[in-house]
Amino acid sequence: MNHTPLVTITTDFGTADGYVGTMKGVILGIAPQAQLVDISQEIEPQNVRQTAYVLYTAYPFFPPHTVHLIVVDPGVGSARRPIALRTPAGTFVGPDNGVFSYVMACEPVEALVELADPRYRLPQVSHTFHGRDVFAPAAAHLAAGVPIADLGPPVSNPVTFPPPLLTVGPRSLSGEVLHADRFGNVITSIGRLSWQENGLSLESAFRKAEGGEREAGGGKHVSFRVEGTAVTVAGQELTGVHRTYAEVETGEVLALVGSEGHLEIAVREGSAARKLGLRPGDPVTLLWRMPG
Amino acid sequence: MNHTPLVTITTDFGTADGYVGTMKGVILGIAPQAQLVDISQEIEPQNVRQTAYVLYTAYPFFPPHTVHLIVVDPGVGSARRPIALRTPAGTFVGPDNGVFSYVMACEPVEALVELADPRYRLPQVSHTFHGRDVFAPAAAHLAAGVPIADLGPPVSNPVTFPPPLLTVGPRSLSGEVLHADRFGNVITSIGRLSWQENGLSLESAFRKAEGGEREAGGGKHVSFRVEGTAVTVAGQELTGVHRTYAEVETGEVLALVGSEGHLEIAVREGSAARKLGLRPGDPVTLLWRMPG
Amino acid sequence: MNHTPLVTITTDFGTADGYVGTMKGVILGIAPQAQLVDISQEIEPQNVRQTAYVLYTAYPFFPPHTVHLIVVDPGVGSARRPIALRTPAGTFVGPDNGVFSYVMACEPVEALVELADPRYRLPQVSHTFHGRDVFAPAAAHLAAGVPIADLGPPVSNPVTFPPPLLTVGPRSLSGEVLHADRFGNVITSIGRLSWQENGLSLESAFRKAEGGEREAGGGKHVSFRVEGTAVTVAGQELTGVHRTYAEVETGEVLALVGSEGHLEIAVREGSAARKLGLRPGDPVTLLWRMPG
Repeated sequence: MNHTPLVTITTDFGTADGYVGTMKGVILGIAPQAQLVDISQEIEPQNVRQTAYVLYTAYPFFPPHTVHLIVVDPGVGSARRPIALRTPAGTFVGPDNGVFSYVMACEPVEALVELADPRYRLPQVSHTFHGRDVFAPAAAHLAAGVPIADLGPPVSNPVTFPPPLLTVGPRSLSGEVLHADRFGNVITSIGRLSWQENGLSLESAFRKAEGGEREAGGGKHVSFRVEGTAVTVAGQELTGVHRTYAEVETGEVLALVGSEGHLEIAVREGSAARKLGLRPGDPVTLLWRMPG
Repeated sequence: MNHTPLVTITTDFGTADGYVGTMKGVILGIAPQAQLVDISQEIEPQNVRQTAYVLYTAYPFFPPHTVHLIVVDPGVGSARRPIALRTPAGTFVGPDNGVFSYVMACEPVEALVELADPRYRLPQVSHTFHGRDVFAPAAAHLAAGVPIADLGPPVSNPVTFPPPLLTVGPRSLSGEVLHADRFGNVITSIGRLSWQENGLSLESAFRKAEGGEREAGGGKHVSFRVEGTAVTVAGQELTGVHRTYAEVETGEVLALVGSEGHLEIAVREGSAARKLGLRPGDPVTLLWRMPG
Repeated sequence: MNHTPLVTITTDFGTADGYVGTMKGVILGIAPQAQLVDISQEIEPQNVRQTAYVLYTAYPFFPPHTVHLIVVDPGVGSARRPIALRTPAGTFVGPDNGVFSYVMACEPVEALVELADPRYRLPQVSHTFHGRDVFAPAAAHLAAGVPIADLGPPVSNPVTFPPPLLTVGPRSLSGEVLHADRFGNVITSIGRLSWQENGLSLESAFRKAEGGEREAGGGKHVSFRVEGTAVTVAGQELTGVHRTYAEVETGEVLALVGSEGHLEIAVREGSAARKLGLRPGDPVTLLWRMPG
């Protein structure tokens, strides 16, 4: 392994208390050359589903030799297992509580082990801070080149939670709200994979619209709304799916395809989560009235 | 270029969602040795002027080979151009929306280009996350040594906003509030350049006061207030300009010269922004009654 | 010195204003290869005691060549001295206001100097931002290998604050609340050292309980509460000391030994600080009724 070790960190620890800094000290004690990248230390406390979602949006953009360290761990000190898994897209370390559900749904798992070998823990393991005493050392050793199989025995039945709601109708997709980001943009479970399964192609519709626009002279602020579609959410019907925020007026609600390829509900320069009162689990439907 | 690549990042993304972490993954995929420094991820959403101010306070303290990546981008997906500019004090990458106004006012621009070449973007460019797909790759390639001219055609008319209000009277300077920091210290547009233009010298007055203090035996907590000056703000008149917070009592309002050389309104161990209700754009005047 | 320079940073600057980023620019201008780790930039403004506590929990987990830079500095610009100290566990740089009280209580001080030599400051020193102009350059030079004695004259009377309240009774320990973390877990002054002084051994009691549990077949979620102990806090008596949060029901108050070896008051998946209204300085007592 000739790469500079690279470890990302995702926790619900916040940054006020020094817990994340302490974990970084442990990592640099073991892998002194490691590069450390914060993905998020501001996960809502103990929100395993939000963690899984944030990790899902970030890991594909890191080099495959990256070790992703996750410590969102409501069950610390209980019997939940500490685990590590290797995929072609990266290596992952954290509690066996479902945080890796989306990774395991998207990537082939090449190895999955329990972090059992005491050589890859700190000499003293507390009962309440496994991030420091168990997970950080494991991530550092993996980043430094220790083979994953050395860390402990294989695990065959990891905890995963059920995939987000998604119902495919004849010309509709029904899903749920997954996540609201800092801007109040609301990301739904209706995503790239579900377009394909349903024989829909928002992308080809967008390309057609863009081609038309180019012929028309490249005018600016043209709306690329996909006609013949409608989104029902929070008791409202939004007509058409847009390409970007700037296609509507300030303060207007719109549906668009977000940066992960998922259907997103947004308000230009505002918060859709607040304006529509949307929360994770709320239903959302995309109707497709004309041939895609 | 023999320097370790160094990229700073300033956004309004916050740190909860993993957007900044994702951008760092993109940069490290292109420039694996890069050092990454957060300047601020907590810019008020879409506040282009605050961004310009924060960048102005930070960039002079970085080595000139640094690439400063800025993603505060209300117009993402619209026709606003992605740009890069090179100055003797650093290279800057971000949207063409005014965020570089103060840099361009302070530094000679050696090159200014539109980020048009698809070789320096991700293969798939979303319509809503150019930080990841356009700006981060450009910053990484520049940090790794790609010449700026390779990224796209020259831009001759960048967007800048007008400089902050500043009126120079016979023995007065009238300006406006620029920014309030986390402590509630209020920074104004009355700064080092304006002292000089007006023939004033707060610095020589301070030096004189300090010389006097040294002769007097180095007593502690002596106030270095520049007599003969007065600051009018929020309907109050503050007598004299101080050198530092510790020269007044806890809870007292004072005017001082802040760490960037600008006139600042503060409350010792308190918030001037809250106590005086000050907001960006509010007027402030410095009167200078005696020869400087 | 063959280590990669490693500098940690702890401030009350927050991350919105770019102050910490600016300090990092200064450090990388002096020590271009330095690794930089945030311990906390979210110390409560000017809370010197919280700073001392956070540093105390973090520094032991960093390699001994680390330089810990602390800028929580209510007295900036007054006569308080800027200092650096070297211990076998790390080197520390910051204001002489008590932030190093716990470090000096735990580690032998090998050298302690005032940061007086202008060669190790920025050329221009402001009166309000010594983090940038005095402390960051000193930390960078120390991390790059400058001997501590070169930075200025020895200091023999550093400021320290009195140790946290702790009274050792025949079979009781009385202390105070030190700190509440982001989760609302409340850490007290009753810690590892005080167990030993009192001839108590929570650890051996836990080991005994765990041994018993193993014989009983390794049942899960068994409570390891140390019987015969009681904790009085906020007018309540909690029976027994637990090992980890998962041993009680969601929402229940418990006493446990936290990850630093201190007695901690917590609520499973909730906030003890809020539920019990606890604040730093509030009294807490541990009674030990039976032989340990």
